[in-house]
Amino acid sequence: MRRTNASTKPLMIFPRGMQAEPQAFDRVLSSMCTEPHPVAREAAERFLATNPGDPGTYPTISALEDDAIAILGEIAGLEEPAGYLASGGTEANIQAMRIARERADTDRPNVVMPESGHFSFRKAADLLEIELRIVPTDEDHRADLEAVRACVDDDTAAVVGVAGTTEYGRVDPIPELAEIAHEVGATCHVDAAWGGFVLPFTDYEWNFAHAPIDTMAIDPHKMGQAAVPAGGLLVRSSDLLDELAVDTPYLESTSQATLTGTRSGAGVASAVAAMEELWPGGYRTQYVRSQNNAEWLADALEKRGYEVVDPTLPLVAADVPRSTFDALRGRGWRISRTATGELRVVCMPHVTRKMLAAFVADLDRLEVRASVPVVADD
Amino acid sequence: MRRTNASTKPLMIFPRGMQAEPQAFDRVLSSMCTEPHPVAREAAERFLATNPGDPGTYPTISALEDDAIAILGEIAGLEEPAGYLASGGTEANIQAMRIARERADTDRPNVVMPESGHFSFRKAADLLEIELRIVPTDEDHRADLEAVRACVDDDTAAVVGVAGTTEYGRVDPIPELAEIAHEVGATCHVDAAWGGFVLPFTDYEWNFAHAPIDTMAIDPHKMGQAAVPAGGLLVRSSDLLDELAVDTPYLESTSQATLTGTRSGAGVASAVAAMEELWPGGYRTQYVRSQNNAEWLADALEKRGYEVVDPTLPLVAADVPRSTFDALRGRGWRISRTATGELRVVCMPHVTRKMLAAFVADLDRLEVRASVPVVADD
Repeated sequence: MRRTNASTKPLMIFPRGMQAEPQAFDRVLSSMCTEPHPVAREAAERFLATNPGDPGTYPTISALEDDAIAILGEIAGLEEPAGYLASGGTEANIQAMRIARERADTDRPNVVMPESGHFSFRKAADLLEIELRIVPTDEDHRADLEAVRACVDDDTAAVVGVAGTTEYGRVDPIPELAEIAHEVGATCHVDAAWGGFVLPFTDYEWNFAHAPIDTMAIDPHKMGQAAVPAGGLLVRSSDLLDELAVDTPYLESTSQATLTGTRSGAGVASAVAAMEELWPGGYRTQYVRSQNNAEWLADALEKRGYEVVDPTLPLVAADVPRSTFDALRGRGWRISRTATGELRVVCMPHVTRKMLAAFVADLDRLEVRASVPVVADD
Repeated sequence: MRRTNASTKPLMIFPRGMQAEPQAFDRVLSSMCTEPHPVAREAAERFLATNPGDPGTYPTISALEDDAIAILGEIAGLEEPAGYLASGGTEANIQAMRIARERADTDRPNVVMPESGHFSFRKAADLLEIELRIVPTDEDHRADLEAVRACVDDDTAAVVGVAGTTEYGRVDPIPELAEIAHEVGATCHVDAAWGGFVLPFTDYEWNFAHAPIDTMAIDPHKMGQAAVPAGGLLVRSSDLLDELAVDTPYLESTSQATLTGTRSGAGVASAVAAMEELWPGGYRTQYVRSQNNAEWLADALEKRGYEVVDPTLPLVAADVPRSTFDALRGRGWRISRTATGELRVVCMPHVTRKMLAAFVADLDRLEVRASVPVVADD
């Protein structure tokens, strides 16, 4: 064979940033991901070159995935754990909508979701050609049950509830949503991608034990402190996964229910390592620390005259003006905004009281409203 | 808030296998993934906690992704590189089919693909509700052009060609497939997920410079020696990506064209590192070594009386009986079979001549056909 296609261009310069420190989380307040726990990092590095998508070739990581689902099931109150580790919450949400579509007895399926639902459901709807019916939330940013009831019909394939919304950390009334879903023969899906690792330490009703929900997204790589990519899809019974299965020639397994083919062993191993290490005691401690930080920040912002959405989970939203927001970003703070423009700070495990105090001090410098002294004691 | 939900079960035992060596590739002959190159591993470890899906928060890894697409474009003959790093070839194939569906002016889109196409297209068809029309291959396992021509119609959204098939490493006649596709207003997608990093050193016509193809899957985490997950989707012009875009509230970017949301910075960084290190010289050397290994193995099997499919790329298929296949698996060899039951060995970078010699020696022991001495000299 001749070898005629290769470019003879010189190598590019070693890419920009590759030398820089990419993992400095000291100013990241916007992310729902975090620094992996040390045991998760170690496991990720050891299993970097494995593929749970090919269990015939990589049986060890495949067995570890079973362990991951067992622990996730325990966290989520699922008696006979079934599901798989996905690339993230988006894949889990897409796959749950796909299960719902396959089970729905209609040619024009719709999904009913509160406006607080994640944008991944828009992706799912576009991909799966499902009509997405978005209903309002109530004054506390939770799904408005009357609006949901008025919106479902015989073509409804799924009703979505969020357990820890992306913008305000709110938990929808899950048992009621499940009831509405089942009344019209739809599945009930809970998006606990972010909330799933803090909700066990609250008294919210959010999981498989609390309500007859069908599917759930719950991501070890968010509050679970695993390395990306480690999302989680849980299903109440394994026959729901059959809706996703395709045959797999060339692999020594017979079918595959995942959206992706090759998958990251690093994500799976790190999820198991983090959950083994932290469930439940470590996660409980982390929840308390994060929640206290959120309440401290909410208090600090409120004292400065900003309107703050009460952080019922470790996530703070406040009406900081756009110019101030931009100036804070200019100072290197990684922050983001809600759809209506509020500053949004996610108190992930890497977010310390000291970081938040530095953030508030920067805010004071910018706003010249610094009437309240900042004290950091965590 | 009360804390009533947490389980009080004791921690599980440290998971089985976590202590074992998971990355021993010395018997893996079935995988299209491989050991990441050392520079790829290092980059993956450094960027483990970054998310290119959130460029506002993680700008460094986002810039690295641009670099990755630039190099991939160079490899694939794309003048104005556009695309993104996907979780793998499955996502790239799904997204290419989604682009085709969105652009097709029909309510009943179909996709025409040779039977050698990867099973990920079945997944895509199921997900996207596209009719998948599978056409036969010719006696050399390449797409039968007459069959493709007979199968396309006004509802055809895409014609798929494979550049390096999963079973036999064959390259379909890409320019002809592109012509057939465009005659009916369909896109032409090339699946070079595995082949893309060896084909530049052959005289095949497979890429954007050789034919007016529209989209391509080309995976750094296969022959490109990056860490999983690092697939690649390339598109001829960036407006094709617009078909995939959804709005992204909460992120400081405005839209997202990827299938997943959170993505692995490890995959992106490792892809850049591997491609910077190996393109083109290192990949050329690897191609030569892999191809020589494949030809050596094909020769050894042929001498033993097996029917062997000529390895035109570094992949060998041979009609080893099922009982022998099972016995080889019993000896720890990770091997797999084609749909028609042939043994299939992929000569990835981790596959050495010594490994192949040990494999053939084991085969001889099992078959008692050892009339030809095995010599390993690589």
